[in-house]
Amino acid sequence: MERLRKHIEQIAQISDQQFEYIKPFFAMKRVRKNQYLINEGDEVKYEFLVLSGIYKVFYVDAQGKEFIVQFAQTDWWMSDYQAFFKKQQATMHIQCVEEGEVLFSTLEVREQLASELHQMEHFFRVKLTNGYVAQQQRIKLLLSSTPQQRYEAFSKLYPTLLQRLPKKVIAEYLGVSRETLSRLYSK
Amino acid sequence: MERLRKHIEQIAQISDQQFEYIKPFFAMKRVRKNQYLINEGDEVKYEFLVLSGIYKVFYVDAQGKEFIVQFAQTDWWMSDYQAFFKKQQATMHIQCVEEGEVLFSTLEVREQLASELHQMEHFFRVKLTNGYVAQQQRIKLLLSSTPQQRYEAFSKLYPTLLQRLPKKVIAEYLGVSRETLSRLYSK
Repeated sequence: MERLRKHIEQIAQISDQQFEYIKPFFAMKRVRKNQYLINEGDEVKYEFLVLSGIYKVFYVDAQGKEFIVQFAQTDWWMSDYQAFFKKQQATMHIQCVEEGEVLFSTLEVREQLASELHQMEHFFRVKLTNGYVAQQQRIKLLLSSTPQQRYEAFSKLYPTLLQRLPKKVIAEYLGVSRETLSRLYSK
Repeated sequence: MERLRKHIEQIAQISDQQFEYIKPFFAMKRVRKNQYLINEGDEVKYEFLVLSGIYKVFYVDAQGKEFIVQFAQTDWWMSDYQAFFKKQQATMHIQCVEEGEVLFSTLEVREQLASELHQMEHFFRVKLTNGYVAQQQRIKLLLSSTPQQRYEAFSKLYPTLLQRLPKKVIAEYLGVSRETLSRLYSK
């Protein structure tokens, strides 16, 4: 739980007393490789803060083809946020790519902590700001016309993911074939 | 400025006195069709709240091809947020598609109001939450494999934009040719 405190205090200073209050709202979970945290059709009760490991948020179209919306690694929050915030059924999956640990909590916790503690409202706002900017980059990457541009943008933004993820998964994220990706790697 | 108050109070209640304090931090601007609010390479000082009109946020690649990242209409905030938050040069343009009015303010204003008034921190957090969810939808739309799926997702999410925007602009947003779009319209 000290990790949670460090994570919050990168953005907002909180007192010992405040942290003692915040702590019990979060629970920890170990996640094995390939394990699902959210499945399409689920009621989405939780959002997850990644302590370690890598996770992919993706959806599957009517033809069974998989599309990766985002990756999440240490210090990222993740959920099917449309479903989480609007209390709808999940339209996406979250699956573990590299084993690790996550903290999780509910929408009610997020809203309660934000409402009771200005610092927590600030914390969540800053995290959303970062997430919003990252998504704007993701959209630009998807719009990029050539596989080469997508690959370059990705390797600049997430050099560690480029090292750690299986090529198959990166190819899916970039929306290119494995052959194309191999060609880009060898350049 | 009453529009600003209504906009804030859809999310957070503020007193008359608080609104009198907030008001002078925002300025109003009329925008003509085709006018630019941000140009690539600009220092991005402002974010904009749309009171009326339609705007497109887009970038241009090395070959001069235009890619629309998002549209903005009434009650949406817009900027090149990467550049705005990180005080970098703009990598995107914002241009008016249908004339209207916007309010604008700076990053310093956003941070000051959020820090001084818990309600404003809450207001900005909720707006970011909505923007984050909309972007997750935009990413899903871009990942969709067929033009038909993209078109259907767009018309479900933004029926009014479908009516009001030129077909050329919609085709750019969906990343399909005008001919393909016409075929989808006629279905």
